[in-house]
Amino acid sequence: MQRYFVPEENWHLESVTITGDDVHHINRVVRMKPGDKIICNHPDGHAARCEISSIESDAVYSKVVDWLDQSVELPIDVTIVQGLPKGDKLDLIIQKGTELGAKAFIPLQAARSVVKWDHKKLQKKTERFAKIAKEASEQSHRNHIPEIKQTMSFTELIEESNYYDVKIFAYEEEAKTKHYQAYGDILKKLKVGQKLLVLIGPEGGIAEQEAERLKEADFHPVRLGPRILRTETAALYILASISYHFEELRWNECQQ
Amino acid sequence: MQRYFVPEENWHLESVTITGDDVHHINRVVRMKPGDKIICNHPDGHAARCEISSIESDAVYSKVVDWLDQSVELPIDVTIVQGLPKGDKLDLIIQKGTELGAKAFIPLQAARSVVKWDHKKLQKKTERFAKIAKEASEQSHRNHIPEIKQTMSFTELIEESNYYDVKIFAYEEEAKTKHYQAYGDILKKLKVGQKLLVLIGPEGGIAEQEAERLKEADFHPVRLGPRILRTETAALYILASISYHFEELRWNECQQ
Repeated sequence: MQRYFVPEENWHLESVTITGDDVHHINRVVRMKPGDKIICNHPDGHAARCEISSIESDAVYSKVVDWLDQSVELPIDVTIVQGLPKGDKLDLIIQKGTELGAKAFIPLQAARSVVKWDHKKLQKKTERFAKIAKEASEQSHRNHIPEIKQTMSFTELIEESNYYDVKIFAYEEEAKTKHYQAYGDILKKLKVGQKLLVLIGPEGGIAEQEAERLKEADFHPVRLGPRILRTETAALYILASISYHFEELRWNECQQ
Repeated sequence: MQRYFVPEENWHLESVTITGDDVHHINRVVRMKPGDKIICNHPDGHAARCEISSIESDAVYSKVVDWLDQSVELPIDVTIVQGLPKGDKLDLIIQKGTELGAKAFIPLQAARSVVKWDHKKLQKKTERFAKIAKEASEQSHRNHIPEIKQTMSFTELIEESNYYDVKIFAYEEEAKTKHYQAYGDILKKLKVGQKLLVLIGPEGGIAEQEAERLKEADFHPVRLGPRILRTETAALYILASISYHFEELRWNECQQ
């Protein structure tokens, strides 16, 4: 069933009004009619099955049929910090990262980021990213749309990192050390509901002085398999392995 | 260090000759000079550090300095069967799947595949896929270039599947059943060196009659987390979670 994220003000006692782009989608793209059912997501994370009562040119009116209690959110709150990559790679990272359950994204102006975004470019990009995240959330039946935070400097990121329980960064150099268990050990210790901050460098990787500052700020370096991954692949590896560990493997059952 | 895959006939007792596109890459793209070092991959999976002795317009001559014994291949042989998706999604799947360690890819003409490839288109595509796999292998420092097999019909695939130890397919319907442990349990039982066949449907998913035939052929349905993944994301989830399970988590250590 088609899902739509509806802002709080459009929720009434037993009815939901859909406005904006979604009206065009319901009316022209999927061509629904009164009586058809949709799922409306409330900003608080709840979702309701609704029946369309009428379709106007600028609004779709629907009645709440029942509330759904299922949630498909990752049991760990994962925020992806992505060193600004070239071209439109960040579009791919946000789309796939949203499908894979990321809670939020933070673009990072890293030392080796080739691109620099001025204020105007930044604003346009942020709007585009929010649209990609919303559409990917609907497509993957998420109850939550990932937040795209403002692009941060390295110093701002270190400050931000104080609000997370566990912090890791993908560090190619780790692949050459003996700490092969690091990443798996970190996930084993993570507890449901904890906040994980994951930093991925840009194409050139994380600069040595950045790695030093991250370690001082309690970020753990991890390797993501022995192969060298492109920057846009690293975040997807992290999210897929967290989903696998907590949703499909269920590590805790192996202790029993 | 830059890596190049060199066909068997270009390997001599203690020297390696590089020909074809790689000559241009060495000469014009990374602009190397005699005395510079590169890594040459032998088709048998071994790799040697070589020193460039001379650069001609159509060939680069190098001397073997020493042999490297490290391998970065996945401990499980994973072949990805991908129902033909729209547009150039298969390019992305092959590039990222190669970074993540896939052993081979098989394009599948699935019931719900919108695209149909005639012989001419197929030939051009196959050449393109081989090029993407070769470049991604070099970029991710693989010792092996994934094989891109000929596009198969569903019946041909069932025949092919007899040559694999374990067979799974991503089946959205599973997310609605109670078999949540299925995928994790399958990886727990997999042994190093075994051959795993993974089938991913096209955008429309796997048709019911296809799912039935797969189950009859001992394919196990799995879900990849509770979120609905786009077809091009599913293969990456599978490969990342296999790398995590066998290379970073090391499941067997949890029994101790």
